[in-house]
This record gives sequence, C-alpha cells and structure tokens, in this order.
Amino acid sequence: MKLNRSLSLILILACAIVATAQEAPAPKLNLMPIPVSVKFNRDRLVVDSNFRVATRGHSDARLQGGIWRFVKRLEGRTVLTLPAALAPDDQTTPLIIHCQGAGKNIPGVGENESYRIDITSRQAILSAPTVVGALRGLETLLQLLDADRNGYFLPGVQIDDQPRFPWRGLLIDVARHFQTIEVLKRNLDAMAAVKLNVFHWHLTEDQGFRVESKKLPKLHQLGSDGNYYTQEQVKEIIAYARDRGIRVVPEFDIPGHSTSWLVGYPEFGSAPGPYTIERRPGIFEPALDPTREEVYKFLETFLGEMAALFPDDYLHIGGDENEGKQWDRNPAIQAYMKQKGIKDNHALQAYFNTRLLKILQKHGKKMIGWDEILQPELPKDVVIHSWRGTAALAEAARKGYDGILSNGYYIDLIQPAAQHYVSDPLPADSTLTPEEAKHVLGGEATMWAEWVTPETIDSRIWPRTAVIAERLWSPRTVTDVSDMYRRLAVMSLQLEELGLTHRKNQEMMLRRLVRNDDVGPLRTLVSVIEPVKEYRRYQMRPQTMLSPLTGVVDATTPDSETARKFSFMVQEFLNDGPRFQLYRVELSQMLADWQTAGASLGPVIDRSPGLREIKPLAHSLSQLGATGLEAISYLKLGMPPPRDWREQSLAKVDEAAKPYGALEFVVIAGVKQLVNAAAEVKTQ
Amino acid sequence: MKLNRSLSLILILACAIVATAQEAPAPKLNLMPIPVSVKFNRDRLVVDSNFRVATRGHSDARLQGGIWRFVKRLEGRTVLTLPAALAPDDQTTPLIIHCQGAGKNIPGVGENESYRIDITSRQAILSAPTVVGALRGLETLLQLLDADRNGYFLPGVQIDDQPRFPWRGLLIDVARHFQTIEVLKRNLDAMAAVKLNVFHWHLTEDQGFRVESKKLPKLHQLGSDGNYYTQEQVKEIIAYARDRGIRVVPEFDIPGHSTSWLVGYPEFGSAPGPYTIERRPGIFEPALDPTREEVYKFLETFLGEMAALFPDDYLHIGGDENEGKQWDRNPAIQAYMKQKGIKDNHALQAYFNTRLLKILQKHGKKMIGWDEILQPELPKDVVIHSWRGTAALAEAARKGYDGILSNGYYIDLIQPAAQHYVSDPLPADSTLTPEEAKHVLGGEATMWAEWVTPETIDSRIWPRTAVIAERLWSPRTVTDVSDMYRRLAVMSLQLEELGLTHRKNQEMMLRRLVRNDDVGPLRTLVSVIEPVKEYRRYQMRPQTMLSPLTGVVDATTPDSETARKFSFMVQEFLNDGPRFQLYRVELSQMLADWQTAGASLGPVIDRSPGLREIKPLAHSLSQLGATGLEAISYLKLGMPPPRDWREQSLAKVDEAAKPYGALEFVVIAGVKQLVNAAAEVKTQ
Repeated sequence: MKLNRSLSLILILACAIVATAQEAPAPKLNLMPIPVSVKFNRDRLVVDSNFRVATRGHSDARLQGGIWRFVKRLEGRTVLTLPAALAPDDQTTPLIIHCQGAGKNIPGVGENESYRIDITSRQAILSAPTVVGALRGLETLLQLLDADRNGYFLPGVQIDDQPRFPWRGLLIDVARHFQTIEVLKRNLDAMAAVKLNVFHWHLTEDQGFRVESKKLPKLHQLGSDGNYYTQEQVKEIIAYARDRGIRVVPEFDIPGHSTSWLVGYPEFGSAPGPYTIERRPGIFEPALDPTREEVYKFLETFLGEMAALFPDDYLHIGGDENEGKQWDRNPAIQAYMKQKGIKDNHALQAYFNTRLLKILQKHGKKMIGWDEILQPELPKDVVIHSWRGTAALAEAARKGYDGILSNGYYIDLIQPAAQHYVSDPLPADSTLTPEEAKHVLGGEATMWAEWVTPETIDSRIWPRTAVIAERLWSPRTVTDVSDMYRRLAVMSLQLEELGLTHRKNQEMMLRRLVRNDDVGPLRTLVSVIEPVKEYRRYQMRPQTMLSPLTGVVDATTPDSETARKFSFMVQEFLNDGPRFQLYRVELSQMLADWQTAGASLGPVIDRSPGLREIKPLAHSLSQLGATGLEAISYLKLGMPPPRDWREQSLAKVDEAAKPYGALEFVVIAGVKQLVNAAAEVKTQ
Repeated sequence: MKLNRSLSLILILACAIVATAQEAPAPKLNLMPIPVSVKFNRDRLVVDSNFRVATRGHSDARLQGGIWRFVKRLEGRTVLTLPAALAPDDQTTPLIIHCQGAGKNIPGVGENESYRIDITSRQAILSAPTVVGALRGLETLLQLLDADRNGYFLPGVQIDDQPRFPWRGLLIDVARHFQTIEVLKRNLDAMAAVKLNVFHWHLTEDQGFRVESKKLPKLHQLGSDGNYYTQEQVKEIIAYARDRGIRVVPEFDIPGHSTSWLVGYPEFGSAPGPYTIERRPGIFEPALDPTREEVYKFLETFLGEMAALFPDDYLHIGGDENEGKQWDRNPAIQAYMKQKGIKDNHALQAYFNTRLLKILQKHGKKMIGWDEILQPELPKDVVIHSWRGTAALAEAARKGYDGILSNGYYIDLIQPAAQHYVSDPLPADSTLTPEEAKHVLGGEATMWAEWVTPETIDSRIWPRTAVIAERLWSPRTVTDVSDMYRRLAVMSLQLEELGLTHRKNQEMMLRRLVRNDDVGPLRTLVSVIEPVKEYRRYQMRPQTMLSPLTGVVDATTPDSETARKFSFMVQEFLNDGPRFQLYRVELSQMLADWQTAGASLGPVIDRSPGLREIKPLAHSLSQLGATGLEAISYLKLGMPPPRDWREQSLAKVDEAAKPYGALEFVVIAGVKQLVNAAAEVKTQ
C-alpha cells in the first residue's frame, strides 16, 4: 500500500474556508465537497459567449473529453453558445488548464487528485499534476459558476484542494434489482460531480448474476432472467468511469449470497440443489462447497476471466453473511473439516478465502472483502471492507490491514444526510497512530437494491451521497450541518443536468398514482412522510424482487426538506414566545395545507385503489394540521386550552405516528412541541 | 403491393363507438386510437392480485415478451404483485390471449394487425390472427384499465379492431442531433402504445452520418463526431422494434443532404472539397456526383452492406432538396449531361435514382423516396413519400405508385395536435377510385431534429404524435377534436410509464433556468407561450447544431393546454353575457396569476441571465393579465370603459403579441375578445 498521504497531511493546515483578513465577509459558495483551502479576492471573471479554454502542458483524449463535457454543461446552464474548439494558450484566454501529466493509465489508489484554481478578473488557471486532478478541478469550476444581472461569472478565488481519503466509493447493487447501463452512466457522472472515485459494482447475489461469462455461460444465462451486462457493456462502463477518473471494483460475493450461481452450476453448491433464482430479500443458505477441488477450478476459471475483464488492482470477493447452514448439514463437508482439523465454519471460510487469495494473486489482483474475512491467518495485503463500523476498521488497521468504511453509509436505510455526515472513517477520537491511520483508506456509500428500480434508484442515492463524498474528501473539521444542507440543495439541482432523475421521477410517480387526478394533495402528504427506516419496510409491507416498486413508499424520498423547514420554524416560533410571532403565518399556512390536503385525499384515494394503503395517513395529515393550528391559536391568544386538550391532542399525534404502507410522518416531534407549549399557557 | 385491405373495408361498418340500444349511455373510454367498433355490456372484470394470464393457440417468445411487459405495466399502475408465470387456459383464468399464428417473421406491410377483445365479468379474451395483432390488443387492454373505490377493473366491452392504413410511421432524424439508443427505445415503446408500426430512421444528413459502416468506415468515423450507432446497436433496435410489431425503415438521404458522407470520401462529391460536417440548419450544396461509375460502386458497397443490416423490405433513399448547384458548376457533369442528352438536374437525379433502384433491387429492397423522386421514367414499384401533400399523393396513386403522407405531420413545426388531426392521407373529398386509393398506404409523423436533444425530443414528439397515430389507425369519421384532447391528456400520462420525458423534463429545465429560485412564475409564463411556429425559430434566434438547447424556447412545449382552457373559458364567459358569471372566478384567478407572475419574474431574470431574452414577455404577461382583468371588471359591472380604453388596451395586446426569444403568447385572441366585448358595454 503505497499511498501518497503524508503530503495530504502536511497540506491540510486549517479549516475549510479562509477569508483573507482585509476582505469583506466571504461570499457563500456552493461547493461540495468543500476544498481544503479557499481564499477570496475581489475579482470576478466574466463568463460570456467569448469564454474560451486552452490547455497548457500535458493534454490527452481524456482531458479533452473532460473539457468538452465541462463546456457543454457550462453552455447548458448559461444558454450560451461557446467556442467549440480549444483556444491558444495566451493571456486573453479566459480559462487555462495546466496539466502536468497523464497520471495513472488505469485509475488506482495512489492517484494524485490534487488541483489548484486561481481566478482573477483576467483569467482562470486550473493546474493539476494529473488529468484526474484537472477533472476534479473542472467540477469545482462548474460549482463556482455564479450570476447576477450583469451576467454569469466565476468569483475571484484561489483554491488548493486534494482529498482526505484516497478511496471514496459508491456501491451499487445491480443484482437484487438490475440497473441499466444508462442508470450506471448517469450515476458515474454524478459521482464525478462530487469527486467520488470508486464505483463498487456489486454484480452477483442470490437474486441475480449480472455479468456475462464466456467461459461459464450458464452463470448469466440461467442466473439473470436475461438481465445481465455483456462483456462489451462492462468495458463500456469501465471506459466511461476511467474517463471520469473513477475506478471500477467488481464484487463477486462468495461463498454465500450465491444462489444465482448455482442455478446453472448446482454441482458446486454445498447441497445438491436444484436451485432457482431467489425472489425474496434476506439471508439464504446456499453456499459454494469449500472442500472440493473442482469448486476452486471453477472459481479459477471464472475469476481468471473476470480478472482479465476488470483492470482495477482490486477484486471484491464479498464473503459476508454466510451462516454455513448448508455446510453443517453436508456430511462430506463435515468429514473434510474433521480430517483437516478445521474447527468451525469461520475457519472453513478462512480456508476458502486463503484459496481464493491465491487465485487472485495468480491473476495479479488484490483481494477485498467484508469484515467477516478478517480471520487470524489472513495475509496483510487483503483489504477489509467494514459494514460493522470504525471500531472494527481501527482494529484491522492496528493489525496492519488496509480498510474502508461502509457502516454509517448505508444509504438504503433511508436515513437523513445529517446522520451519514457524522460518520467518519477516522473519527476525531480515534486512537490510531498516524502510521496505523494510513491504513484507513476511506469509505463507500452502499446502495443495496432490494427496493429500487431504475425509476427510483437515483432518489435513494442522491442527493444524500454527496455529503458522504464530502466527508471522504474534505477536512475532518468540515461539519456545519445547516451549511451542508444549504449546499446540498444546490447540488441536488445541479445533479439534474447530468440526467439524474431523483427529483423529476417523483412527480411522474405521483401523477401515475393519482391517475388523472390533481396531484397536489398527495404531493403535500408526500412532503412530510418518509419510508420507514432501516429494514422495517419489508416487515411492514412484504414484497418480492418481482413486485412493482411504484407505490407511495417508492415515490416518497428520504430526508424530507419540508420536515426540516417545519422543525426549524417550530423552534423559531416557540423561541419567540410569549410574543409567538416569528414564522406564525408560514407555520399556520403549512398546517392549514395539511388539513386541506388530508381532506382532499379521500376522494382521490377512492378513485385510485393503489393509494388505499395510505388512507390512514391522509386522515392523520388532517389531524396533525388541525392540532398544530389549535396549538398555535392558544399560544397566539395566550389562552389556556381546556383541561383534557393536551392529552387528547397528544393521543391524536401518537395515532398519527403509526406507520402505514411502510410510511411514517417525520413532523411528529414538531407538532408535539407545539401541543406541549400550548398546554403550558397559563391564564393571564 | 399485396395488402389485405379489402377485409378492412368490409369490416368497417359504422362510426367508432356503438352503444347497444338497451344500455345506459356508453361510459367515456380513454382509448387512443379509437377502435373500429366498441360495444358495451354492463359487466366488469376485476383486476386484483389474482389476475392471471393464459395463452391459447399459438405462443412464442415475442408474444410472451409482450405479455410480460403488459403484466409489468399493469403492476406498475395498480401497485399489485401479479403472478409471474402464465396460468393454465381454463375458465377461471381472467385473461386468455388466443393467438392463431406467428404472423410475419420480419414485420412487413401486409401484416394482419387486427384483434378482438371480449370482456365479461368472468373473463377477458383477446383473440388475434397474429402475434402483432395480439400486441395491439394488449395495448388496448391497458388503455381500458379503470378503477373506482372497489378496485381496478376492465369494463365489459366487445371490441373489433384493425387499422385503416397499413403504414403508420414516425420518422426520427438522428442526424442533425444525435439521439441515444435509450431515446429510440422509449420512443419505440410509445409508438407501440399508440399502435404505430414503422420507425423511419433518418440516419444521414449534412450534419451527421450516424451508422457504422464496416466496409466504408470513414463514413461514420469522420462524419459523426463519434456519435453513431454500431451495427450491434442497429440490430438491437431492430430486434426491439420487431418485439413490438414495428418495422424499421432506414433512410440514407442522397444525392443531396450528403455533406457528412463527403467528409471522409470527398472524391465522390460533385465538387472537389474538402468537406466538414455542417453545423448550420438549412439546405446545402454538397451532392454526390451522379455521372461517375465509381460513385455507383461506392453506393453499391454501402447500400449492399445496409441492405444486409436492415431486414425491412424497404430502403428510403431520401432524394429531397437537392438543388443541383454543385452539378451546375461542374464542367465534367455538364459535359456528361450534354453527351447523354440529360436535359436538366431533375432528369439527372432521375437517372441517379434509376441507377440506385437497380442497386436496391439487386439486394432485394424496394425503394422509397421523397416527392422529388417522382419523375416520368420511375418504375411503379417505388414508393413516394410525400412532404408536399395529399394532392401529390393522389397524383402518384393515379399513376399507380404507392405513397405515404407526411405533409401535415411535421411535428417539428410546433403546431397544435388539432391541426395534425385533420390531415388525412385519404381525405373525405378524395376523388381516387377504390383501386387507386389502395395505393395510399398511410403516413408518417416527422421529427426533424434541428432543435431537439435527448433532453427535449420527447416533448416535441409526444403526446401530439398520438393523434397522428389515431388518424392513421381509426376510421376516417373519428374527428371529434374536444374528445381527442380529453383522451390525449390521459395518453400523455400513460406514456410516462414507458420512460417518456415529455412532461418531467420540463420542470427540470425550468429549475435549471431559474437556478435556485422559485420556479413558479416562470412556470406560469411557460404555460401560455409557445415556440414560434414553422421555421421562424432559426430566423429569430439563430443557433448551430452545437448550441445548447436549454433555453426557455426549449423548455416550452407546443399545444398549450392552459391556452386551450383559457380560450374555452373566455367563450363560455362571453356567451354567458349579460350575466357574465360562468367561469368568471376561474378566469379572473388565471389573469391575476399572470399579472403576479409577470411582476415576480423581474428579479428572477436578474439573477439568471439565461432568462434575459424573455424579459419583454414577462412584462407582457403582466399586461395581458391586467388588461383581461379590466375587461372582466367592466363586463361584470356593466360599466362602459373610458373612450380610449379599447384602443389603448388593444395596443398593449398587440405589443404582447410580438415574439421574443422565438417565443410567442398563445392567449392573445382570447384577451382581445375580452377587450372587444368590454368595449361594447353600453351605459345602461
């Protein structure tokens, strides 16, 4: 592991944004992730139809492709036709891109991604040691674009930037629900926009085998329902990612999670089969048989083929959640363990991993796997991918293993961005020595795909993943949650220009749900409810991998902006007591909207049976609105409510807190605060 | 030309919807195109999670694929998980699909597309002689799906249906702006939804050469900026279309419109070159040299390769808009014409076409070309594609040529659906004999792509093309415009489930234009303006093929629904005089919204320079709102306005009628009517 991280530790001097002393307060920039250092000057560089770009130093097809995309996005936002050809490198060219070298031919862990931006009123200069650094800087330039009545401009700044961690990834599970090439491409674009650099392609699962194997074709032919990537498409994605400075790390999850492998090749399972593609979510028993040589021959063939297809140094072998139940029941496996002195299933899996490691090493690959692979005999050049947490990661680091964090970054759990934002691979209270800390390479957001289709997946990944990208790129001290949400709202819009559908598909899904009806009342409800968190959705609303994901729970997104706004206004309003003026009008309007929308939803639901499951929520929406309005009214008038009012109101709110259709209100606490405050009003 | 059209003439007995006499008034169905015959019974077939499908008679992979897609869409709309496997064919299975045979292996002009649907409360039976007929019927079933508080259901109907014309196409120009595979796929899905059956793939133009040629690779390598379809992708699209019963007719437009061909092969042009890819819209001079044998060898090679790639019987050779200026200036061509007695450029092109025809015949293809190819010596088995009109088409038919109509179906001209709806390839006043009329095969909507990108193209094609599809499928007597618009609104929503972006991309584009501002006021403006019609956009707002298509003109869609609603309300309101009550509140609200939105747009435009071009429109929006409100006020009070009010008001409205940013208001006539009516108020 030869990471150039000492440099990064030297360069990170202070907190994110440094305004030079003699200047006016620094303007609020919309950068995400926040760079290591930003200094302002009073200049601005005009962006108009004469905005030309020149290169200096190294140039190649990848850089030119990046510049082309940069210009097209700049044109898209400004509606300006910009010169199509590169300009000469002289003092009148508005943007000079000075790149010192190509960098790695295949993106890798040690890539230098640093860049510097100097913007004056005459010229912007982006300089970087590598093409990838220049690409990172181009994204920052696009985020810097601003405008006023005089036109578009880039503000005068000097930015020095480089990532805190070298491994900043997004895992997309394409196995439980297949995701098309276009989904992957637009998500790679979005990753590049927030400076993520590893696409972890989770290609196999009990529920699907998604990559073409020319040597073992029954894998994809029988394991995928026809939904797999051809090797040509895999190459296309790898090239697309490389163009954006993104590595592609494939995962083939074994020995468990392998039902779909065994549909075509039951002879390599630990039970005789036959096997069919799993349609349910969960943890299943099928596992490869680690005691038979033909299984390793099979894996040698398959992994050799994949090692040649995927150029990255690393190959992820999964290794998680194998409970070994098939092993326990297989007399031959038990006999083998006894004979070889393998004491339990963990040891058996460690043996399997050791064999796997040899196969990977033979093909020039480094191995990465989930926490479970960390067994006593594991060689030190294996990377641990931790779903367990920073403690497990630190323990691995102390033992000398490189590791990456995904605990805290499970974006399928529908938690707010703020919660992911505080997860740090190297938290402030870490007791690792600097040498040990170098083993912590970074982290990955994980998009597990039990409940996402191409129509909804973007809304589960974005915009929240941008804050994980910031955590992994920006200095540890960048932690202001309210500024994070301010910038995230801007990023969310900018991601749309790349084709991301996280916003636009919601309206479409609501229109489909209400058929030809008015979408307004449902939109109001959806703005204050969220899917239930963690793994409760399946418990409350069981479906299979073949079920439609077109219900209200699917159209509803995590991290409700309206709920944040409501909560903010409630605090401000209550803090303004006994006057109770601040935000009273806005709060009352919002609560009245809930009351009206809840009532209007009744007939809408009657005409659209797909909405029946939210009928209780529509009623609760009205109740929450009415209760909140009552509370505000008592507070405003300084009039104590009747004796039983608090109890009755809280009972209504508690009733509203019950989830239906795997959906729950996220404004409960705010309404309760209003009720409790109103109940405290004393007769004057 | 062996068309099975006599059958269709026999079966078409009466107008579209026949309610049986003893029944209540027929419910309003949302079918588009309207079937030949629909009879109602009082039954309804429940659609719940037990809804299963069985096949009877012929079955094959194409039919099963169609059933799978049908079930997935049914699930998507109803949020029901339906049984994944086909059911046995018995009396308890809700839907039986009885298909008699596979039909043509490669979709072709004579395909029998008829089907019958019988729905009772016990069972629905869809029967069809071919798989394509069954696919058409499945689309009708999806359009029949209805719901009330008891759940989803299919209404009891008996439908007999088949198309009026065998050739019902959509041309997509992928040359002027390249369109991705995903754009084509979702548009093929939409075509199938409205029963179109020909995808006319306009693959080459001055501005781009979009198909890979393995034999003449400089064509796509130098003529496409890298934006072309590989032959694998072409096969993918052909298979995708075939699965939906859609033919793929490729067009290679020659001898004019060929600049992009000559970038790689200047030696086949009529002037020495060099040539570069054309970036402007318009008609250009470059043309192949029809006098040299090596040009025909070149075409023989290329067309031979394409004839093998595209399985359809027809190959479109364009042939339009060649003014022959290069020919006039080329002494060798002039000498050749003199020597051969070719009297003018028309005759020279006729000679060229005769040579082309031989090449196509050799490769088993029938030739189709635009009006211009109809020259005296043209053999009768060539199909004329008319951009000129029904008279040209009728003339060709009289001479014995098959023909299809596109005049009236130029959807790039931004005209309302109602205007396309009245264009009939065989108008009621046609004087063709029945035998001659058989030569009129149908028509094609044409999506010329000067000003569309993958982001906007759907909004130019849909939903309007659905009414062209109805014109070409339904009986001639189906002409009720207001019912057409009612059904079109439903279709527009249903098309979204196929991934069409005609609605959802608009909001995204508006969000991008206003940056982080409130999108409301711009949305209000955009709801009552449209891009200027016909070819005025380029004259008023010149751009190149490399310019961004992200302006307000691009975000604005044809055929404003709000303008139709406004116009309707104005009529009803004025007809309600002297009471002037009907729709007064709604009209006043709409006008007040215009007034407010116009004022709010000022600061929004200041912050977003990309909106500057619409500043005068924002002002006019306020003026139109204010003027309309004044008029309503005078009418309501029965109070005559001041002497000069009419003149001054009409002057304001005329001012508002001026286009800016290639955009114009489409509510001018209604406001004028209000003003004129108010000016007529007499003192009581």
